[in-house]
Amino acid sequence: MKLVLDLDTGVDDSLALTLALASPEVELVGVTAVFGNVARDTSARNSLAILHMLGRDDVPVYRGRDRARTADAAYAATHEVEVIHGANGIGNVEIPDAPRGPEDQTAEELIAQAIERWGKELVIVPTGPLTTIAAVLEADPSLAEKVGGITLMGGALAVGGNVSPCAEANIANDPEAAAVVFSSGAPITMIGLDVTLRTLLPLEATARWRAMGAAGRALADITDYYIRHEPAALDRGGCVQHDPLAVAAAIDPTLVRTLSIPVKVDCAGELRGRTIGDKENLLTGPCVKVALGVDAERFEQMFEERVERLLTSVAQR
Amino acid sequence: MKLVLDLDTGVDDSLALTLALASPEVELVGVTAVFGNVARDTSARNSLAILHMLGRDDVPVYRGRDRARTADAAYAATHEVEVIHGANGIGNVEIPDAPRGPEDQTAEELIAQAIERWGKELVIVPTGPLTTIAAVLEADPSLAEKVGGITLMGGALAVGGNVSPCAEANIANDPEAAAVVFSSGAPITMIGLDVTLRTLLPLEATARWRAMGAAGRALADITDYYIRHEPAALDRGGCVQHDPLAVAAAIDPTLVRTLSIPVKVDCAGELRGRTIGDKENLLTGPCVKVALGVDAERFEQMFEERVERLLTSVAQR
Repeated sequence: MKLVLDLDTGVDDSLALTLALASPEVELVGVTAVFGNVARDTSARNSLAILHMLGRDDVPVYRGRDRARTADAAYAATHEVEVIHGANGIGNVEIPDAPRGPEDQTAEELIAQAIERWGKELVIVPTGPLTTIAAVLEADPSLAEKVGGITLMGGALAVGGNVSPCAEANIANDPEAAAVVFSSGAPITMIGLDVTLRTLLPLEATARWRAMGAAGRALADITDYYIRHEPAALDRGGCVQHDPLAVAAAIDPTLVRTLSIPVKVDCAGELRGRTIGDKENLLTGPCVKVALGVDAERFEQMFEERVERLLTSVAQR
Repeated sequence: MKLVLDLDTGVDDSLALTLALASPEVELVGVTAVFGNVARDTSARNSLAILHMLGRDDVPVYRGRDRARTADAAYAATHEVEVIHGANGIGNVEIPDAPRGPEDQTAEELIAQAIERWGKELVIVPTGPLTTIAAVLEADPSLAEKVGGITLMGGALAVGGNVSPCAEANIANDPEAAAVVFSSGAPITMIGLDVTLRTLLPLEATARWRAMGAAGRALADITDYYIRHEPAALDRGGCVQHDPLAVAAAIDPTLVRTLSIPVKVDCAGELRGRTIGDKENLLTGPCVKVALGVDAERFEQMFEERVERLLTSVAQR
């Protein structure tokens, strides 16, 4: 399968990227950079640096949107987000810059061309705000039915949010863009807090990575920072796996159980950023597959085995 | 199975009561009256009158709570509710009073005794605010694990509410009581807007009832009023079946597909009355079975066949 990862890189985005690189089914067409956990240009920088660290300078990185549709200025991470991901987005761990920079072509151009070229073979995995994806689908609405799938990390259907009682962070960062994507008619799978909060990456896993060369040690340092600062699974001795689960579900949709339901995004007031079943179009609207159940054990095993195999292989080069 | 119906009678409560009487599996231990669609005493009166109309003066009716836990005065229906159910709760249709009145014993006493006596054979079906049920479970928390089930109409998990963007009417009428019930550990099945909005009782069905004697004509008049005033399925030529679906799911749980999830009830601010997955206790809390899918066609067939058989039988007496 062809994959485009649309990342706001971010610790768990780095882990999602690592999982994609570690997955033999995946041909990574490109990584696109969007604002979110970090500013857009930091996202591009971090994705390039992770790719370099894992020996994959061949994968191009493209710049997407740097702010929400309604924002006047380019996005900069809030203090709360910097605490969770580190000021540099990757746990304040220093890893070398890549020898190459981002492409001149924009993320929007890459994604539109990739859909035209690969069609149903292509799955897009957005793990940040949906600003770039919305721009692509608005510029050419016919792309919605051409793409193989959009398996996104974001939203919360049957549980509350993580940045407000209603809103999950990726959706909250650009609800208007999310509304465009959810109503586009594209084949969307929503991997939201309903399922990501049921997953775990334990400290035992990152401890094993430390025996797997320089990349393993760096990835362990990056992830351990996140484990210490992301509150959702601290009491279980690890972190939840928001973004990696979206990549895994794109590769193997049987990892999640979904409810098909039209989803609307509230954009006003206290509910801003809420993803909720669209009561008015319940029997008629275009449906999103919303993941409500996950085989967490099988996902965790898949993630850990694949990442460890990749880190071992990188260490032996 | 033994059933206690806890009704705020109400048009769709009347239909739920009719379905219970029409179901050979059901031994109706009693009907309890709570405020909601109407005042508590009107609920008792209407339940007695419907029972009388259907030749079931043998079923006793008990008075439950007449106001929410936090209310200072007995509840009276709002204008909006009177428009939907009629000022008398049953579509402004005049049907004779029953020869008997409500019991001296309270609803709380009846329910507690029924749980002690019938245990796992007993299912309670609340179709109004959970005020009385909460009082029973608070007075003796051990009853929660003794009862066979509480299959309630109320709430909205993956869709928005019907009295606010977050809240369904039954929960909104007493969120504090709902919070007690949902966290009680009792085996709860939540039949909320997620599924009731997918059902239909069409005008064609009530038209058939008109050939089925005086009770059929009265029930058709009552229901047609509701069909004309309840907005959820007007465009589909009928009404949705909130309360009858709870009775049907109590009789045949395979009619719905459920998600097991701990449910909390928001009690403050704009979110007051929201039923939402309890993110903080997602992996540990006592779970509610929340219906998210329904075999609407099979339910509708079951409802229409049973009610028509009962009405025909009543007409032939």
